[in-house]
Amino acid sequence: MVTRLSQSDPGFEEDFRALLGAKREVSEDVEAVARGIIDDVRQRGDAALIAYTSKFDRLDLASATLRISDDDFAAAERDVPGDALDALKFAKARIEAFHSRQMPADDRYTDDLGVELGLRWTAIEAVGLYVPGGTAAYPSSVLMNAVPAKVAGVERVVLTVPTPDGVINPLVLVAARLAGVDEVYRIGGAQAVAALAYGTETIRPVAKIVGPGNAYVAAAKRLVFGQVGIDMIAGPSEVLVVADGDNDPDWIAADLLAQAEHDTAAQSILVTDSPDLADRVIAAVERQLTTLPRGEIAAASWRDNGAIILVGSLAAAMELSNRLAPEHLELAVAEPEALLVRVRNAGSVFLGRHTPEAIGDYVGGPNHVLPTARSARFSSGLSVHDFIKRTTLLKLGPEQLRALGPAAITLAETEGLGAHARSVSIRMNR
Amino acid sequence: MVTRLSQSDPGFEEDFRALLGAKREVSEDVEAVARGIIDDVRQRGDAALIAYTSKFDRLDLASATLRISDDDFAAAERDVPGDALDALKFAKARIEAFHSRQMPADDRYTDDLGVELGLRWTAIEAVGLYVPGGTAAYPSSVLMNAVPAKVAGVERVVLTVPTPDGVINPLVLVAARLAGVDEVYRIGGAQAVAALAYGTETIRPVAKIVGPGNAYVAAAKRLVFGQVGIDMIAGPSEVLVVADGDNDPDWIAADLLAQAEHDTAAQSILVTDSPDLADRVIAAVERQLTTLPRGEIAAASWRDNGAIILVGSLAAAMELSNRLAPEHLELAVAEPEALLVRVRNAGSVFLGRHTPEAIGDYVGGPNHVLPTARSARFSSGLSVHDFIKRTTLLKLGPEQLRALGPAAITLAETEGLGAHARSVSIRMNR
Repeated sequence: MVTRLSQSDPGFEEDFRALLGAKREVSEDVEAVARGIIDDVRQRGDAALIAYTSKFDRLDLASATLRISDDDFAAAERDVPGDALDALKFAKARIEAFHSRQMPADDRYTDDLGVELGLRWTAIEAVGLYVPGGTAAYPSSVLMNAVPAKVAGVERVVLTVPTPDGVINPLVLVAARLAGVDEVYRIGGAQAVAALAYGTETIRPVAKIVGPGNAYVAAAKRLVFGQVGIDMIAGPSEVLVVADGDNDPDWIAADLLAQAEHDTAAQSILVTDSPDLADRVIAAVERQLTTLPRGEIAAASWRDNGAIILVGSLAAAMELSNRLAPEHLELAVAEPEALLVRVRNAGSVFLGRHTPEAIGDYVGGPNHVLPTARSARFSSGLSVHDFIKRTTLLKLGPEQLRALGPAAITLAETEGLGAHARSVSIRMNR
Repeated sequence: MVTRLSQSDPGFEEDFRALLGAKREVSEDVEAVARGIIDDVRQRGDAALIAYTSKFDRLDLASATLRISDDDFAAAERDVPGDALDALKFAKARIEAFHSRQMPADDRYTDDLGVELGLRWTAIEAVGLYVPGGTAAYPSSVLMNAVPAKVAGVERVVLTVPTPDGVINPLVLVAARLAGVDEVYRIGGAQAVAALAYGTETIRPVAKIVGPGNAYVAAAKRLVFGQVGIDMIAGPSEVLVVADGDNDPDWIAADLLAQAEHDTAAQSILVTDSPDLADRVIAAVERQLTTLPRGEIAAASWRDNGAIILVGSLAAAMELSNRLAPEHLELAVAEPEALLVRVRNAGSVFLGRHTPEAIGDYVGGPNHVLPTARSARFSSGLSVHDFIKRTTLLKLGPEQLRALGPAAITLAETEGLGAHARSVSIRMNR
């Protein structure tokens, strides 16, 4: 049975806090293994990559076949059905259009003392994109990671994807081509992360690594952080649906199950002011579970992590939503805009009854890489900003140095930094 | 003797790579200690804070005296000389003016299919600012961290600062007041980080922790990451000065020493196309070292980590600069703008002969919290962006769902996600 809470129950605050604090992820301690692999790749380069790929992916490669060739791409394009290719192109165009609006402008100005100030944005020169192998090789994730990088102006986007037993999802290659990925290598695991961070004979290093992966990949990313930048380490996916009583329970059930089918650790929560809708959604979930291809996964997620919370008002629902800080927030209500203004912490919001979250996973335009596990309280989804960096600028002439210098010297002296003070004072008489 | 490299030497590339790869920081393995302290604060709250403060800071507190009182602030204000107060106010106003220009605008638009899209920026609700105690308690750093948070709209900025033997730098309190900090607690170390992340009876938790600290503080920040956001873990400071032959060697020497005096692990590098300037700067450094209050620290930094690189042209200097990705880059040349366009990787640039880096430490306006250890290749200095987060928006009506739905269903089916497809298809006939 799914967890049911009601705000009017005396123990509600305690139960809600338990929900907030629940850890859905089992963290495996694989750091030592990942560290060993990274060290080996740093020392032996391609030879280590080839050895690990033989061991883990049962695939024998040479330096010359680490990289996916033009022939491989051509074969993949032949294998992809026309409707899937069209859907990928449609998705790519919409993601590109949304992310293009995110590029910030440089700034340069002169203040009233004549000091010139500003900032410049530049793209990261080279970025690595990790794509998991097997069933988790989602072409949509290739687009969501690679398109913003290319919109940002990253010159070199390098993708790695393990191909167990030599099998690759052709949609991943087609998505990579569409997104403008420059190089693709058939490697995975901590060894791929190491190759991207430190380089080998065949693979030049990148400056940042993004993309999802298993526990070994996550551990490897944490270990190479500093040598390169990394994106967030994503946890299991989650949705919070805020619904009034006028919803079709089957629609809401489908949305809850769409999240639940990702992973047994995924979380789907319904918050509603209608006890009747709550009952009917529970029944609809049970009904739909019987006909889902990933029904067992979805059932386990719903049973172990799902929740239905009954609230006295939709305003109260938004307070709980802000405390939960959901990755995805659906506002399935008559007037979603009235609730939107109350949203403080959420990765992405889906407004109204006709905006299921799954649209955002593929073709909405906004990114589907979003903060999980309440981290929307302090972080954002993937965007063009993850692929650019800012350099600030300052330019003084002799007159400006005389205007700003005395305060700088005073502060340097209070902090005991004599050379700081001298580097200003020595210039003040010229 | 300082390291000297010349681009015309046959072994240059190897020597330069060694400089790039040099680790200046000794990383202490203090994670286990930090973890124990965090666990204790989570269990015992204020009692643990009081015990650690007694042990490490030799200061006996009670829950009621953890927080700095209005009387403490009043006393600090009496202790700060007028010129220092004026300098802090001047710095605060300039930092505020620069950072106010960074606030991005929300976006909301309707595309040609009638899909409504957008994004909203919201401030993080509560932020903790760690300030080191003793001689490293820099009031300038209080301003550089707290002012952007307040410009971003953070409602609650909480500062912690250890006060060994009960001694506090009054300038830190005055800077906190000026910057609009809401609460100040006299605690430090991993215990302060734990209190900010998890809360105690007296201290409510925050959503993000920023600010510099020692190895224990850095380890604690890494451990609480996920529970809260953290800023970058800063390494030793560094400057790269690109100078032509027309510079006063004493000015350049003062700039190199201003960086060197921070820390024996700090790094100062001069890149010049003038062998004569190189010789004269070396002599000026030796001369100035004898009269510096922190001369021993600066001498050790210059000897162990300093470098002078002779290049064939200023264009070549910029290529090396981009590979080094310096935290601070001074362009002490006749036409700095001509070099600026070649800057790809740098935290902050100081243009022309009259813009010593020390101005930027205090009163320039741009932030002095900047990426170190080559991380300017993939990251940026502290800014308003570190205190806000983005929520993306999507809104479809029935017509838009019919337009976007088929592609979403196709992609969901190729990824084997049946409930995703159903959550779209179930709405398409209405």
